[in-house]
Amino acid sequence: MAEESSGNSNKVEVIFSPALFPVYFENTNCTVVVIDIFRATSAICAAFERGIKSLITVATLEEAHQYKQQGYIVGAERNSEIVEGFDFGNSPLTFKDGKYKDKTIVLTTTNGTKAIEMAKSASRVVVGAFTNFTALCDFVEKEDKDVLLLCAGWKDRFNLEDTLFAGAVAERISQNLRFTRLSDSSLAAINVYNTAKDNIYRFLSESSHRKRLSRLNMEEDIIYCLTFDKTNIVPVLKGNEFVTNNSK
Amino acid sequence: MAEESSGNSNKVEVIFSPALFPVYFENTNCTVVVIDIFRATSAICAAFERGIKSLITVATLEEAHQYKQQGYIVGAERNSEIVEGFDFGNSPLTFKDGKYKDKTIVLTTTNGTKAIEMAKSASRVVVGAFTNFTALCDFVEKEDKDVLLLCAGWKDRFNLEDTLFAGAVAERISQNLRFTRLSDSSLAAINVYNTAKDNIYRFLSESSHRKRLSRLNMEEDIIYCLTFDKTNIVPVLKGNEFVTNNSK
Repeated sequence: MAEESSGNSNKVEVIFSPALFPVYFENTNCTVVVIDIFRATSAICAAFERGIKSLITVATLEEAHQYKQQGYIVGAERNSEIVEGFDFGNSPLTFKDGKYKDKTIVLTTTNGTKAIEMAKSASRVVVGAFTNFTALCDFVEKEDKDVLLLCAGWKDRFNLEDTLFAGAVAERISQNLRFTRLSDSSLAAINVYNTAKDNIYRFLSESSHRKRLSRLNMEEDIIYCLTFDKTNIVPVLKGNEFVTNNSK
Repeated sequence: MAEESSGNSNKVEVIFSPALFPVYFENTNCTVVVIDIFRATSAICAAFERGIKSLITVATLEEAHQYKQQGYIVGAERNSEIVEGFDFGNSPLTFKDGKYKDKTIVLTTTNGTKAIEMAKSASRVVVGAFTNFTALCDFVEKEDKDVLLLCAGWKDRFNLEDTLFAGAVAERISQNLRFTRLSDSSLAAINVYNTAKDNIYRFLSESSHRKRLSRLNMEEDIIYCLTFDKTNIVPVLKGNEFVTNNSK
């Protein structure tokens, strides 16, 4: 849609895989929303909701090890499980007792932190999940820039849960006249979301990642990650760390 | 879904961009269906329906020029228009008078021939369009291999019309018990197709490529490309050329 002329409205693109980010990233002056519903971005929102001070994401286990050696609290997940020797993985339930309150923590995951790494050259990078849906949409609208909804997917493959969330955001913000330039990917994601929205949990019953997590007995995580608006915090990248939108 | 164990059933994947082909291409023993509804694969089906002997696709204008210098009939399209100095572009209407009957022709297009080039290492590469839908699905079912539905998209971006066709094929072949391992991308494409199928033309009214072609006064092409089952020919790659499935 880059060639479309549409007055002052911002474009809304859904990027279905981190491997496609370079195709869509034309201009650093945009808001990138990183989406990894199962479970990195849901976990990051949970961590801030339970009071962490800031969060550093890294793409590789090597970097995660280096932070660990420096004394940081470090989470690491690969293939849906905690990597041995680290403090936690990517379960949002990790944070429910608030034990990392006021700490800076470090995280690396299979898909989500890789997507964040790719997005870092954008002028604004935020984390989105069903759990911060309304706060995220409000934040994106206030930013008033082109929006790239970056689905972390699974090892560069398309996945349904990230697409559903991207569709929910695209639909919500497109009701604002500042965000009416919907790409084909946005139209498709909205379409899928509208079919699923009455029962997202059931809609995902055939999805690959929900099956993967169910095999690992992670039903409680799945239900948590599909709950709307548990927090009004939007994790925002400042320099090399995520902080909350309220700490500006 | 690679890790799913599902007996003897074949998997069905939709690949939303040629840039994602390497992510999904795990095994050469598969059927790749190349899809570029507006308009390369619709044009290729039309050319065979009107009696061409074979078709050579090339990715670059340089290669196309070389064939032209050797005396071939060569089509070349970039950004929806015929490239100067070539015999035609990617309009299926080019072929309606049958003037290239029994000839070998050469074609390069913005998206479709690039996707074909990527797919060439698969054991079976075929061309799909609404115009050969039923014949294509029958052919894919007989091949009885994993299926990759490769959407040519627009300059590596997702597009709706290729997705709709991929969804139509995925839905049709998944009714055959040999093709029940649907990936998340297949589930999403089927979902979008089911919403659109009662009026595909209207559904695409907001899509980027239909708008692009409408600006270029190509309504007749659009309507042609969205018509089911105008031919029972399936163009099949043999060596470096496409021939018809009936010429085996």
